[in-house]
This record gives sequence, structure tokens and C-alpha cells, in this order.
Amino acid sequence: MPKVYITRREVFSAAHRLFNPDWNDEKNEDVFGKCNNYYGHGHNYTLEVVVTGEPNPETGYLLDLKILKKIIRENVISKIDHKHLNFDVEFLKGKNPTAENIAIGIWNELKGKIPSGKLYSVKIYETENNYAEYKGE
Amino acid sequence: MPKVYITRREVFSAAHRLFNPDWNDEKNEDVFGKCNNYYGHGHNYTLEVVVTGEPNPETGYLLDLKILKKIIRENVISKIDHKHLNFDVEFLKGKNPTAENIAIGIWNELKGKIPSGKLYSVKIYETENNYAEYKGE
Amino acid sequence: MPKVYITRREVFSAAHRLFNPDWNDEKNEDVFGKCNNYYGHGHNYTLEVVVTGEPNPETGYLLDLKILKKIIRENVISKIDHKHLNFDVEFLKGKNPTAENIAIGIWNELKGKIPSGKLYSVKIYETENNYAEYKGE
Amino acid sequence: MPKVYITRREVFSAAHRLFNPDWNDEKNEDVFGKCNNYYGHGHNYTLEVVVTGEPNPETGYLLDLKILKKIIRENVISKIDHKHLNFDVEFLKGKNPTAENIAIGIWNELKGKIPSGKLYSVKIYETENNYAEYKGE
Amino acid sequence: MPKVYITRREVFSAAHRLFNPDWNDEKNEDVFGKCNNYYGHGHNYTLEVVVTGEPNPETGYLLDLKILKKIIRENVISKIDHKHLNFDVEFLKGKNPTAENIAIGIWNELKGKIPSGKLYSVKIYETENNYAEYKGE
Amino acid sequence: MPKVYITRREVFSAAHRLFNPDWNDEKNEDVFGKCNNYYGHGHNYTLEVVVTGEPNPETGYLLDLKILKKIIRENVISKIDHKHLNFDVEFLKGKNPTAENIAIGIWNELKGKIPSGKLYSVKIYETENNYAEYKGE
Repeated sequence: MPKVYITRREVFSAAHRLFNPDWNDEKNEDVFGKCNNYYGHGHNYTLEVVVTGEPNPETGYLLDLKILKKIIRENVISKIDHKHLNFDVEFLKGKNPTAENIAIGIWNELKGKIPSGKLYSVKIYETENNYAEYKGE
Repeated sequence: MPKVYITRREVFSAAHRLFNPDWNDEKNEDVFGKCNNYYGHGHNYTLEVVVTGEPNPETGYLLDLKILKKIIRENVISKIDHKHLNFDVEFLKGKNPTAENIAIGIWNELKGKIPSGKLYSVKIYETENNYAEYKGE
Repeated sequence: MPKVYITRREVFSAAHRLFNPDWNDEKNEDVFGKCNNYYGHGHNYTLEVVVTGEPNPETGYLLDLKILKKIIRENVISKIDHKHLNFDVEFLKGKNPTAENIAIGIWNELKGKIPSGKLYSVKIYETENNYAEYKGE
Repeated sequence: MPKVYITRREVFSAAHRLFNPDWNDEKNEDVFGKCNNYYGHGHNYTLEVVVTGEPNPETGYLLDLKILKKIIRENVISKIDHKHLNFDVEFLKGKNPTAENIAIGIWNELKGKIPSGKLYSVKIYETENNYAEYKGE
Repeated sequence: MPKVYITRREVFSAAHRLFNPDWNDEKNEDVFGKCNNYYGHGHNYTLEVVVTGEPNPETGYLLDLKILKKIIRENVISKIDHKHLNFDVEFLKGKNPTAENIAIGIWNELKGKIPSGKLYSVKIYETENNYAEYKGE
Repeated sequence: MPKVYITRREVFSAAHRLFNPDWNDEKNEDVFGKCNNYYGHGHNYTLEVVVTGEPNPETGYLLDLKILKKIIRENVISKIDHKHLNFDVEFLKGKNPTAENIAIGIWNELKGKIPSGKLYSVKIYETENNYAEYKGE
């Protein structure tokens, strides 16, 4: 049976501030620069979730993308869209909300929830120029 | 002499919260919904500034786009990028930071600063699906 | 009061076939070429709806884009998305579904339904290279 | 010798309907929902074909992308563009035209036809949010 | 009869160098900066041509976009694609190839050639951030 | 510790001409076609640089993308932007500037300069339809 990869793209809008609470203001400013602005700033994040496996011969689907969309919206988008990542998001509590940590956090929210095939990659575009990807490695 | 239109696109990242301080929480929640989240959320805003006028016959430029870029960065981007629009931006003080009000605010920051031609339009893309434009009308 | 323009972008997927039932097959083939394929072909159409007017001073909105989105989905997308434009869409009955006619048809569906401001433009992107716009002129 | 990957992007427009002829209408409707519309709907599909191998030291090309474009147009685009995938496309006969099956079908059309390097991946974007990829695994 | 606007997008790749032959090297360097590099640099230019008029009731077309594409390719793309704008392009001879002058030059190449409707706008994107538009004003 | 991949996108504009100096004009014309135009043509090249490794637990960064941006600008963009690739770029001397060779050349400029994690991929988009990638294999 052939193995395929399917991707669902979703977009969410969130605020964040980068800082390490164990450091003083000066060191935070030095390391995180303008990303350390006290009240935060924000992004339209683009999320791409890739699932891999064999298509079902009866449907031709590895996993109906309408179902994958529903899983992502229930487990991720509903918790993160129109939120401030430092205050409002349970699965990022205690993490500095870098693109790297958001990708890892979303992977952990999704990993037991894919009904057919298996989770292959979570990619976060913070801007059109900056992205991070996590593959569970 | 021919009349042309030139456009410079810039991108900035900011947080905002929509609410009216004269209203109670319930009315704010009712009108602004998820955009009223207490700590705010955020966007990668795309800004397009259009200038119109006649090209200079010696340069072929209406206005060198490197100069327009510098004007926009000094007068707008430096004040608004990586900021929270409700707390950090002088020219939006007392305004609800909707896309409409951001476009009008940026127009006012730029209008006396264009050295050749005249300001024609300021367009703000809040997401890939939602935009506002102001032409000084 | 300032006048602004706001835009909502929506996407829908539909099949269509270009032909004129008053012509024979040869003339249809000659005029419409590959767009005349008997069973039809299809597109991901991008729709941009522009509304113009003055922002409400209490909200900063000309018209909440969440409301405009709801109006477009109820009056247009629900009737046209995942349909065959020659068979399934009441408001295109008897029209050849060119981008021009789709834009005019959508304008007519929306024109009495905008609660604040007024409809300014309907733009249809048939592909990334081909668009049509109607402004009620 | 270094190993590189080159990609050619092409776009085609086609109609399709998702259903399984072994199922009754109710089950097809239940599984495929709006994608099961009787007359079909359609998409602007984006196709990306990746070839891998070593560049020729005399040309600096792994494979001239003008040649790859010609191969894709002759073997795929000419058979699939402006068609209805359920009726008009020989290489999809008897297959439910999901993005997964289209990617596998295109791989099979191309696999013996690449004159230098070897076929590495075929990716199909059905919409800006939904993609499928096949790598011959 | 309704009036519509149709747009055809085309892409071409060209080299150019900005300078004024009446000036010395120092002044050219001062005004044009890195765009004055002796051997030139280059862009993937995106061209958008807009035509306006009334659709033909028999076809639903203002002007078949396949015909507009053919007109643009014969009159513009064949003369400008894969060329150096300072040396190879007759209609830019003696002009500094700024985006403004390219847009005006293309307008002049197209203006007598549109068989139905009339030319409304020529837009040139030099990069994703810099554009110029000419409307024959 | 989890392993992530981060990407920085940059854009540069350059001219180039494809030819092999060991061949006569006829053979160059035959192999490279319009890409062999004597004065060259040009592109807006998009560059994507991917770095892989483990995020630092104190910052949540694998490598601050502002630092990666600075490294790419100092080592690549400053040498290649607004240049003619056949005449002005030291690291492409003696190479035919195909997308394949540009990707390999940029990899070699960057490979010893990444302060944390390691270089994983260099991707060059010559146009929206043609790309090359090199992973140091």
C-alpha cells in the first residue's frame, strides 16, 4: 500500500512577549530585544499539520481533511486563537512562547488525537520570513 | 506630464484589544467578541502606502521607493512595530485600534511628510481576509 | 467624518462550463475552447467584497468584518460553494458563468443586505492570473 | 558530487466529485458531505514535482526546468487541465479523485519519463489549506 | 448595461540598471545607490493589465482573458521577458527603466491593441514591496 | 531534548546569464535558450535557510532568528543583492549561475557560520514556479 502525507493549514492570531522570568530586565532586553516589549506584540500565526499513512481503499482518504480540521480546531485553535500566549494558554504555561516552543506544544496537544495515520510534522510560521517545525524527534 | 501611482508595502507585528472604555464588560463582550480578550491578541499587519504624482524626468521616479520606505519606517513602523496598540502607540491614544482607525492614524502620521507627489491611500491588512483603506476623503 | 473602505475575502470551490445554448457545438468550441469541456472544469474562486462609509465613533468599525463575513456566507457562499455553477445556483440560472457574470450575480445577492455603509465592489479571482470586478456602475 | 532537489510548480483547473460507486447515496453523503455534490465542484490545483540527483558539471543543471515543465505538461497537464476528473481522465479511471489519489496517479504518469535525476515527490494543493504528497514509498 | 473591470496577470524576468547618462558616476551613485550597479541587477516583474467596458451578452465576456493574454504576450512579454531593459527593449530606449517608466511604456505598447473595452490600468510589481501603476492620466 | 527546524526567508534581486564559456554561441543558445541572452536577465530570488538542533531551555530558541538573519545578510545578501551573478559575486566565480549552483554556493558561504544547531537546507526560488534545494548531501 502506498504511503502519503497530507497537510492542513490553519491560521490564528495571538499576542505574546518573549522573556525569561529568572532573568532581570536588562538581560531580557539584551537577549529578546523588541520581542520583550512589556505589554507584548502579536502575530497572525500560520500552522501546518502533516499526517502520514496509507489511504483507505474505500474512500481514497488517508484521513478526511474536514476531520483533521475539526481535530485541530477543537484541540488547538479554540485554545490559542485571539489569546495572549503568556497568560491565556494552558498548554504553554511556564514556557517562553517562541515559535519553537509553540510548535512543540501543539504537537503534544495533537499527538494522541489523530484517528488514522500518524502525526508527522507541526510547522509554525510566525511571520512570512520566520518559521519553526517539530517532527517529534 | 503623465500621472502615476506608486506603492510601498511594509509589515509590522502588534498586539491589540478591541473595547470601548465607556461600556461595561458585557456590552464589550457582546460587540467585540473574541477581539475583546482582556490581555489582547495580535496580528502581522501589512501596510500599503500609495503616493500619486508626476515622475521627475531626470530620474524617472515619482519618489524613490527607498525614500518612501525610510519615511514610513521613521514615522510609522518605529512607533507601532512590536508594540501593544492600546498602550504603547501615541498616535492611537484614545482610539479603539480597529483596522479602520489604524489606517486613519497612519494617514495622519504621514500626510505632511511626503516630499514629492501626494499621499493617495493607506491600506491595512489585519489578516489575509480582512482589510481597511483610507484615502483622506 | 472620514470615509473608509473595508474588504472581506472569502474562498469557494465550484465547477462550471462556458457555453451559449443558442449556439451549436462547433461555435461553442470555437469561442470557449477548453472552457467548453462537456462535463465542466472548476476553480477555487476568491471573492473580495468592499464596503464603504464612515466608521461608527463608538466602535471604530464601519461594519464589523465578522458581520460582513456572516452576510457573505449566508447570501453567497452557502449557495455557490462546492456547487456546479451551471446546474446548482439559482442566482446564475440562464447566465453563462464567466467571472464577469459571477461578480454581477454576487453584487445583486448582496446589494440590499449591507446594514451600514454601502456596497462598493465585488471582485472575483478565477485563477491567480484572471480576475473580474463589478462596482454597480 | 553534490546532490540537489529541483521543483517545478504547475497549476491546473478541474472539476471532481467524491463518491464510492459501491455505496448508496446516504452513505456517500454521510462520508463525503458537500464534496459529494451530484454535478461536482472544482479547484485550481497546484502541482509541485520534485526531482533529485547530481547537477551536470557542464550545464550546472540537474535537469533544465524548461524540460521538466515540458514533460509535466505533455504527460499530466494536457490530460487533466480543464477536465472533470471523474469522467475525462484516463489515469484516474476507477479511482475516487481525492488529493491523495491524484498525487499517486500523477506520480505513475511521470515516473518513467524523467531523463536525468529521479522523481522524488509529487505534491497536490487542492486549496490553500489542504495538500497531499506522495514520494513513491 | 453593466460596466466591469477584468485583469490579466503576467510575470516576466528582466535585468536593469538605473542611471542617468547626463550625470557623472558620483551623482548616479548618490541618487540610485545599489540600483546603479554597473552590470545591472534584476527582478521577476509582475504585470497586471486592467481593461474596462460592458460584457457581450452573447458570451458573458467583456474580453476573453485568453485573448487578452495573447495580446499582452505578443506586444509586451515577447519584447521584455529574459531581456536587459537598458539594452534590449526598443520601447524603453532612452528611458531610465524605473517601475514608473516601465508601466508607462507598456501602456503605450498596449493602448491601440485592445479589441473590446478599453485599457484602464497597467500595474508593475518590481518586488513584493514596490509597485507602480499608470492609468493613462 | 526535542530537535526542531527553523527557517529564515530572505529576498534578493540579481541579474544573471546562463552559458558555458567552453561552448560556442550556437551550443549555448541551443542549451540555454532565452536564459542565454547576452546582457543577461534577472530575478527576485527568494532564499530559505533551514537550521536544525535542540532549543536552548533558557531562551526557547534553537537560534534567535534575528541572529540568523544577520548572519545571512552579512555572509550572503551583502555579496549578492543588486548584483550581476556572472560578474560581481566572488563565491560564484567560474560557476554557471543556475539555481542549483547558487544554492550550493550559498551553503558553502554559510556552513561554518551557524553558532548553534547546524545548517540543514538552502533553498532558492528563482521564480514562483522554479526552485532548487541543497542539503549538503
